[in-house]
Amino acid sequence: MPVRREDTRWNGWGWVKAHDPLHGRDAAWPWIATALGVPDLPQTPAKPLGEITLPASRLGDEARGELVAGLGGESVRDSAAERASHARGKSYHDLLCLRRGDLSAAPDAVAYPRTADEIVMLLRWAEKHRVAVIPFAGGSSVVGGVTGTPGGLAASVAVDLTQMNRLIEVDEVSMTATAEAGIYGVDLEGALNARGFKHGHHPQSFEFSTLGGWIAARGAGQQSNGYGRAEDWFAGGEVATSKGLWTLPPLPASAAGPDLRALIAGSEGAFGILTKAQVRIHRLPETSHYAAFLFPDFASGARAIRQVIQGGIPVSTLRLSDPDETHFFQAFAKAGVEPTMKDRLQERFLRLMGMGERPCALIFGVEASRDLAAFSVGQVKRIIRSCGGLSVGSGPARRWYGSRFHGPYLRDPMMDRGIGIDTLETSTQWSNIDHLYTEVRRALHKAMEETSPVAGARGLVFTHISHSYVDGASLYFTFLFPRDLKNEVAQWRRIKGAASDAIVRAGGTISHHHGVGEDHVPWLAAEKGAQGMGVLRAIKRELDPAGILNPGKLVG
Amino acid sequence: MPVRREDTRWNGWGWVKAHDPLHGRDAAWPWIATALGVPDLPQTPAKPLGEITLPASRLGDEARGELVAGLGGESVRDSAAERASHARGKSYHDLLCLRRGDLSAAPDAVAYPRTADEIVMLLRWAEKHRVAVIPFAGGSSVVGGVTGTPGGLAASVAVDLTQMNRLIEVDEVSMTATAEAGIYGVDLEGALNARGFKHGHHPQSFEFSTLGGWIAARGAGQQSNGYGRAEDWFAGGEVATSKGLWTLPPLPASAAGPDLRALIAGSEGAFGILTKAQVRIHRLPETSHYAAFLFPDFASGARAIRQVIQGGIPVSTLRLSDPDETHFFQAFAKAGVEPTMKDRLQERFLRLMGMGERPCALIFGVEASRDLAAFSVGQVKRIIRSCGGLSVGSGPARRWYGSRFHGPYLRDPMMDRGIGIDTLETSTQWSNIDHLYTEVRRALHKAMEETSPVAGARGLVFTHISHSYVDGASLYFTFLFPRDLKNEVAQWRRIKGAASDAIVRAGGTISHHHGVGEDHVPWLAAEKGAQGMGVLRAIKRELDPAGILNPGKLVG
Repeated sequence: MPVRREDTRWNGWGWVKAHDPLHGRDAAWPWIATALGVPDLPQTPAKPLGEITLPASRLGDEARGELVAGLGGESVRDSAAERASHARGKSYHDLLCLRRGDLSAAPDAVAYPRTADEIVMLLRWAEKHRVAVIPFAGGSSVVGGVTGTPGGLAASVAVDLTQMNRLIEVDEVSMTATAEAGIYGVDLEGALNARGFKHGHHPQSFEFSTLGGWIAARGAGQQSNGYGRAEDWFAGGEVATSKGLWTLPPLPASAAGPDLRALIAGSEGAFGILTKAQVRIHRLPETSHYAAFLFPDFASGARAIRQVIQGGIPVSTLRLSDPDETHFFQAFAKAGVEPTMKDRLQERFLRLMGMGERPCALIFGVEASRDLAAFSVGQVKRIIRSCGGLSVGSGPARRWYGSRFHGPYLRDPMMDRGIGIDTLETSTQWSNIDHLYTEVRRALHKAMEETSPVAGARGLVFTHISHSYVDGASLYFTFLFPRDLKNEVAQWRRIKGAASDAIVRAGGTISHHHGVGEDHVPWLAAEKGAQGMGVLRAIKRELDPAGILNPGKLVG
Repeated sequence: MPVRREDTRWNGWGWVKAHDPLHGRDAAWPWIATALGVPDLPQTPAKPLGEITLPASRLGDEARGELVAGLGGESVRDSAAERASHARGKSYHDLLCLRRGDLSAAPDAVAYPRTADEIVMLLRWAEKHRVAVIPFAGGSSVVGGVTGTPGGLAASVAVDLTQMNRLIEVDEVSMTATAEAGIYGVDLEGALNARGFKHGHHPQSFEFSTLGGWIAARGAGQQSNGYGRAEDWFAGGEVATSKGLWTLPPLPASAAGPDLRALIAGSEGAFGILTKAQVRIHRLPETSHYAAFLFPDFASGARAIRQVIQGGIPVSTLRLSDPDETHFFQAFAKAGVEPTMKDRLQERFLRLMGMGERPCALIFGVEASRDLAAFSVGQVKRIIRSCGGLSVGSGPARRWYGSRFHGPYLRDPMMDRGIGIDTLETSTQWSNIDHLYTEVRRALHKAMEETSPVAGARGLVFTHISHSYVDGASLYFTFLFPRDLKNEVAQWRRIKGAASDAIVRAGGTISHHHGVGEDHVPWLAAEKGAQGMGVLRAIKRELDPAGILNPGKLVG
C-alpha cells in the first residue's frame, strides 16, 4: 500500500508519529552547543500548516476542467494539504522554506494518474495550456528535485505517481521483476520477498521513495556493492512523453548503439515520466553476515575497502566512518551519561591494540549463498587484518543495520533548535580520495565558520565512504552548524556553494547518488562539459519540446 | 607498434603471411560440399588489387592543400593501397565488394592525425569543405562500420587513428589506464602486462582492433564475464568534435544526470572521434583455469551457465556450443580422417554417460587470485554436475584458448570456393533464449534454402552462447551457404534480412557486440523506438551539425 501522505510530515522527515530520537535527551543539547561553540541553542519551531496561506491557484477553470474530464475529479486535488505536501522535497533548502511557511513553490494542483496513457494525455494537456509538470512520488529528494515551481510557464501541476504501484510480473528465470514506477520501496521489496526474491535497493529513504524516483535520480542503496546502483539494475521500462509511450526493451546487453537507458537513469523527470520499470532481482540470500571493525585511521580503512573490491570479493556493504564521524556519534549517544567501567576498559583495550585516540569504524556486510558468504567473510577478514583493522564483533553492525533508516529523523529536532544540518556526497577515483576528502572538509569548515552567527562558533563535519567501486569510492559528508537565523538561505547557499566548488575543483562528481535537482545545476556543466550540456539540452528539446517537464531541474 | 597495414590483407582477414588453415586439407572440400548439398565447390578467387582501377579522388586541390598544410604531407595519403585498405571493413558484404574489385566506397584520401587538436582541426576543415570523415583504426568492423562512402557530401576522408597509440598513464591505485584511442589491443595489453596489469578485453579481432574501436562499437571480449564489456570498463575519455575537445571525466559512479559515457560507447564515430580513453584494469591474475565439459543438450548447458551467473560465482568465460556447432567443428576437423580406436572408445564412453548423439560443449574459464579461482572452480563444477554436465578435461579448453583468434581465417579460403560465411549475434533474457534461438535458426535455414543457387542445397547454422549476464545471454550464429554467384549481394541481404527480422520479432537485440554500422541500421528503430531514434538524431545534430561524421552508419 502506498504511504498515506497525511501520515507523513509535509515539512520534515518521515512518519508524523515517529519517535523523536532526541526526546528526553536533555543533556544532548548543552553538549552539542559546546561542540558548535555557541552559548545556547534557540527554539526555532516550524510554522504549522494551519497558519500558512497558500498562493491562489494559477490554473484557469478551462484547463482545470479539461484535466478533471480526463482523469476524473478524484484524481485532481488542490486542497492546502495536497498542495503543501507536494510543494517541495526534503532538502535542507526545502525545509528552510517549508518550516518558515514559504509555500510559494506549491503546485496549483496535484494529479494522480492511474495509467501510462493518462500520463501521456496529461502531458499533452500541459503542453496545450503551458503548465509545468512536476513528477512526484515519494517526494524524498534532498537536492530540490521536485520543487513545484512553474518555471516560466502559466501554472504547475504535481503528477503524483503513487497510485501506479503494482508489481506487474516476476520472471523467475531471467531474475527480473516489472513494476509500475510509483511503487514504494517497502511494497516492492515486500512483494518480492513474499515470492522468495529480493531487489535489494535500500537507500536511507527506503520507506519514503519509489522505484521510479530511484531510477530518475540514479540512486544507490546501502547494499549497492551487492545489489547495484539504479543504473545497474534498471533493465528496461516505459517512459511517457507527449509524443506517446516509449519502450526501452530489457536487453541484458547490446551493441545496438548507445544505451538509452543510461539517459533515463538520471533524467529526473526532465525528459519524460517513467511509468513502469523492469529491474534485476535476486533470490533471497541464504544467509547474511554483518560485522564491525575499527581501524587506526581513515586511510587504512579505505585501503582495506579498496583491496576487497579490487580483489573481486563479493560483498554487500562496506561503510567506513572517518574519525570525526566515528567519534561524534559515539560521544553524542553518551552525552550526559557517566562512562561505565566497561566503557573505560573498552577504551583502554582499543588503545592497547594501537587504535589511537580516534579510530574509524567499518561496517561490513554480505548477503549471499552460504558458500559465497563464507568465502567473502574469510577473505574480507584477512584483508582487514592485513590493513591493521580490529574486529569489534557483530553488535555495532547489527545496531547500524537496525537503525539504518533512522538517521534523517535527527534533522527535524535539530532544526527546531537553531541547528543547520545538511549532507552532500561525491565520488572520485581511489588515487584522488584523500585530496577530495581534505578539500571538501576544509571548504565546509571554512564556510561554516565564516557564516556563523556567533563569533568563535564552528561547524562539524562527519564523513564516510559508503559505496565503493574497483576504481574509486563515494564520500558522504554530514555537516552541522549554528544557523544564522536572519540569513538562513544565504548562509546555506554559501556553505553549499563552497563545498560544491571544492568538489568540482578537486575532481569529484557533484553527486554520487542524490541527483542534480535544482541544487546542483550550477555545477553540472563543470562535470558534463559544454558539449555534454549541449547534448542534454538537445535531448530535452527532442523529448520535451514545450519545456513543461520539471522546469529548473537537471539542465535548469 | 601499430599493425603495418601492408602486412594485412586489404580484402580479407588478418596477416598476409598467415597460414591457410585449410591448406592441405583436400578431403575437407568434398565433405563440406556434401554437408551443403552441392555437387562441387567452384573456384572463386578474389581480384588482385593490381587489376582494379580506383575511382578518381573527389578531393579538390584547395581542400587537399589545406589538409596537407594542417597535418603535414606525410599524414595525408592517397595511394591505391591506402585507399583500398581503408575502403571497407571486414563484413561479409564488405568482402563481397572488395573481392570482386568494387572499390567505389574507397575514401578519397587517408589522414593520419597525431594529436587530438589535429583531429579537431580536421573536423573543421571537413565541415568547411563538406567532406565526410570516416574514423578508422583497426578496420575490423563486421557490420559495415567503416565504409568510406561520402554519403551526400562532396568527398570522403578516412581518419586513420593508429598513429595515436601511446599508453599515457597507469594509475595503480585506482586500477585505471589511460591510452590514446588508436592503440591496438595487442599493444595495450602488452604494455599493461609488462607492468603487472591486464585489461582483459579480447574480442576475436584482438590483434586487428583498437581501444577506440572497441568503445565506439560497444564491444565485448571473450572473457567479458571477468573483464566486462567496453561500456563497463570505459571509465572516461576525450572526444573530438568540431566544437572542440570534450572531456568525459573518469568518475567511478555519479548521479549527476544521465551518464554521457553511455552515449559515446556505441556511438560508432557518428557523434565525435574518441581521442583517448581511461579504462579499468586488473592485476595480472595469479592463476587461470580453463576446462571443457559436455552436456546432453543445449538447454541443460544453458541452465548451468545461468545458475553460475545468477549464483554470483566469479568466472571469466562460459561458452556453450549448440549440438550443430559442437558436431560440425569436430567432424570438419576429422573429415577424411579414419577414426582411431581412441575416437571410437571416446564416443562409446560419452553415449554410456548419457550424452546422446550430439552433445554440447562448454568451455569454462576463470582468471583470478588463487583463492577466488579455487572457489569458482569448485562452485562451477558442482553446478555443472547438477545440470548433467560431464568433464572432458582441460585439453579441449586449452585448444580453444590457444586458437581463439584463428576462427576468422577460415573465411577467406571458403570464400575462394564459392561458400558464403557470415556471423550474427544477439542477446535476450534467459526466459526468451530458447524462442530466439529457434526463430533465428529457422529464419536462417529457410532463407539459405530459398536463396540457394542449386536445388536441394542447404545452409548450415552453428550457434553458441559466449556472453552471459544475470538476466540473459548472447547467442552467436555462424552460417555457411553455397553462394549464388550471380546475385551474391542480394542473396546475402535476403538471408541477413530474414535473420534480422526474426531477431527483432523474437525480442532480441539487433547486435550484442558487433555494433550497428550500415548493416543493422534498418532494424535499429525497432529496438530504440521512435523517441529513441529521435534522441539519437538530436544528439547527432548537436555534436555533428554538418553531418560529416561517418555518414550512413548508426543512425543512417
